[in-house]
Amino acid sequence: MSLIVQKFGGTSVGSVERIEAVAERIVRAREAGDDLVVVVSAMSGETNRLIGLAQAIDAQPDPREYDVLVSTGEQVTIALLCIALKKRGCEARSYTGAQLKILTDGAHTKARILDIDSANMRADLEQGKVVVVAGFQGVDEKGNITTLGRGGSDTSAVALAAALKADECQIYTDVDGVYTTDPRVVDKARRLERITFEEMLEMASQGSKVLQIRSVEFAGKYRVPLRVLSSFTDGPGTLITLEEDDGMENPFVPGLAFYRDEAKITLSDVPDRPGVAAIILNAIAEKNIEVDVIVQNIGHDGRNDFSFTVHRNELHKAQSVLEKLREELNIGGIETDDKIAKLALVGVGMRSHAGVAARMFTALGKENINILMITTSEIKITVIVEEKYLELAVRSLHSAFDLDVENPA
Amino acid sequence: MSLIVQKFGGTSVGSVERIEAVAERIVRAREAGDDLVVVVSAMSGETNRLIGLAQAIDAQPDPREYDVLVSTGEQVTIALLCIALKKRGCEARSYTGAQLKILTDGAHTKARILDIDSANMRADLEQGKVVVVAGFQGVDEKGNITTLGRGGSDTSAVALAAALKADECQIYTDVDGVYTTDPRVVDKARRLERITFEEMLEMASQGSKVLQIRSVEFAGKYRVPLRVLSSFTDGPGTLITLEEDDGMENPFVPGLAFYRDEAKITLSDVPDRPGVAAIILNAIAEKNIEVDVIVQNIGHDGRNDFSFTVHRNELHKAQSVLEKLREELNIGGIETDDKIAKLALVGVGMRSHAGVAARMFTALGKENINILMITTSEIKITVIVEEKYLELAVRSLHSAFDLDVENPA
Repeated sequence: MSLIVQKFGGTSVGSVERIEAVAERIVRAREAGDDLVVVVSAMSGETNRLIGLAQAIDAQPDPREYDVLVSTGEQVTIALLCIALKKRGCEARSYTGAQLKILTDGAHTKARILDIDSANMRADLEQGKVVVVAGFQGVDEKGNITTLGRGGSDTSAVALAAALKADECQIYTDVDGVYTTDPRVVDKARRLERITFEEMLEMASQGSKVLQIRSVEFAGKYRVPLRVLSSFTDGPGTLITLEEDDGMENPFVPGLAFYRDEAKITLSDVPDRPGVAAIILNAIAEKNIEVDVIVQNIGHDGRNDFSFTVHRNELHKAQSVLEKLREELNIGGIETDDKIAKLALVGVGMRSHAGVAARMFTALGKENINILMITTSEIKITVIVEEKYLELAVRSLHSAFDLDVENPA
Repeated sequence: MSLIVQKFGGTSVGSVERIEAVAERIVRAREAGDDLVVVVSAMSGETNRLIGLAQAIDAQPDPREYDVLVSTGEQVTIALLCIALKKRGCEARSYTGAQLKILTDGAHTKARILDIDSANMRADLEQGKVVVVAGFQGVDEKGNITTLGRGGSDTSAVALAAALKADECQIYTDVDGVYTTDPRVVDKARRLERITFEEMLEMASQGSKVLQIRSVEFAGKYRVPLRVLSSFTDGPGTLITLEEDDGMENPFVPGLAFYRDEAKITLSDVPDRPGVAAIILNAIAEKNIEVDVIVQNIGHDGRNDFSFTVHRNELHKAQSVLEKLREELNIGGIETDDKIAKLALVGVGMRSHAGVAARMFTALGKENINILMITTSEIKITVIVEEKYLELAVRSLHSAFDLDVENPA
């Protein structure tokens, strides 16, 4: 008998019919003998409906009241799921974040979980009840309702699993696992049986948005085995674990992530003295523009080139910040390019394999794909290429690193 | 400076625009110097939408979870109203029933308020904040969310006013006060400046559904001055108070209520011995059929006639209960009539005025309206007439008792 935390996202509980399907799945898991704590999101569309109401009144609604408002979305789902479970003779009990005492800090709309009181849950589980918890929400020490921010239900599930020392935290989504790359682009993309937390983090930050990053960090930190699987079909999904499993099929590059929404800015002929990069990035950060890839190469004659990427939507804002600095910092030129794409090979295996980068650049070179920027970390190699080459680059790398399935569906 | 509890019902907060209008009204009251606790219902339609979701899963949804579900309706409104208030620079703070510790018994879907902790409210009021409370809901001693049943927001408001010893409890609705009778039937119907709790109770139970009965009982018991007024227009509304005010215009019959949805059952030639009426009414009650008017006159030769009314929808169910008893109790005949209407004169003034009944029956007789049943209480005379005479009867009594306005709009 295992203790499993299951989390069902908005699409999985998006209608009364879907909620009944989730109830059926829970009943089957109970019959198989598992103890269950179930975390649910708001029905898909509901959170946006509530935010729409608030913003019709005030574009910047008061954060405390915003949390009171949007937390009702998950509360509706826990009640409906328990109604569906009890109709099936399955004992269940719903909890809001406040009822369960999921204690968070007071940072409304983006609170962090500090502590979870697991006494109620344990008592219910001992009585054979399924515990159904509203995700995404908690309560601060003054009793104010807080929310964890978008996607926070994943984090709720992992935090509950950690508090209960659950055997596994299962995240049910509309995909059946984590893939080597986006199956919509590469028809030979393959579901991974396993992936490490580190790899999952690098994949997620590159646009493979299966799980919320914070929940993966959290799971890694508290060593909660995490499994991503589909609420629409049966299947083992992908297990996200702490360590590579030596006994298993172990490609050194399990995944290939990519991202289209960035733009590149190159400052050319920048004075090569300490603090210049910091001044530039501080000015950008002050406008709340997030910077992703940063590259600076060795300079010549006391001058340097400095490149970085920002979200395409923020390119113009970034440009105007830089124009203001141009004279002060004696920057030679400012070039921008919003027709780029980012592509990353991810794998803890590459730590112990020399030549991954060489193999990557060779594969791209064979297709005459020019690499505009390169950065590397211990388990990731990121390149920026022209956007028009993205699909070709992804498919060629997927083959070059033996990620293709033998017989794609 | 007064402490006022204001309650706004579903229609008054039925859209973002209406919520903003309520916020404007609150801001004006604050500027006038009043301290305010505001109780709100769910946006109109929202509670039914939520119940629809539950019943799509289970026609008899689990009561605990039903309360978790429907209580979200008011939670949405408190948040939106506070967002609208804060946008206007008006300090405000929302509370769910659980956050305010509105302690109820554990009778889900129809809980009764046991106690209210007013400490949080008082602290907020001292800081100049408007306290915004979700109506209709509370929490039991185990922390379960409870609801007070339909219309319970009125009761919440009165209970808060009692706990705070407020100067007045104002119930904002879509009508501008309590009328002598239904203005849709009698165009000379007049708004009452004042009415006593007792009169209001008798009016409410007869179909003048301006306020929920329980809230009026509650207000009477705790001596909370209650005012009904419109959230759409300005005006003094109707004040519901404990005593007749001798100084004011004081008709001994302030109101005329009527009700169309009943049916009459007459058992003729029933053995006149103790316990027979009880057996009949117990059998009816066991089927959850509510009985309204009951009349039994003096019998002859050890036999009697016994009449009562039930809701029209339950006439057939009641009939089949009675058919089963017919032989056992030796009942002569069972007659039913569903083309009847009930009509009641209400007024504490009639205690001290002889001849009210005579004047009533004379007025009806003049119009050749036959009276099928009569019952009386200290402050009410109820008659059952044929339904087709209802409007005529109401108008003639309204005139006969000088209730008409001089110049109807």
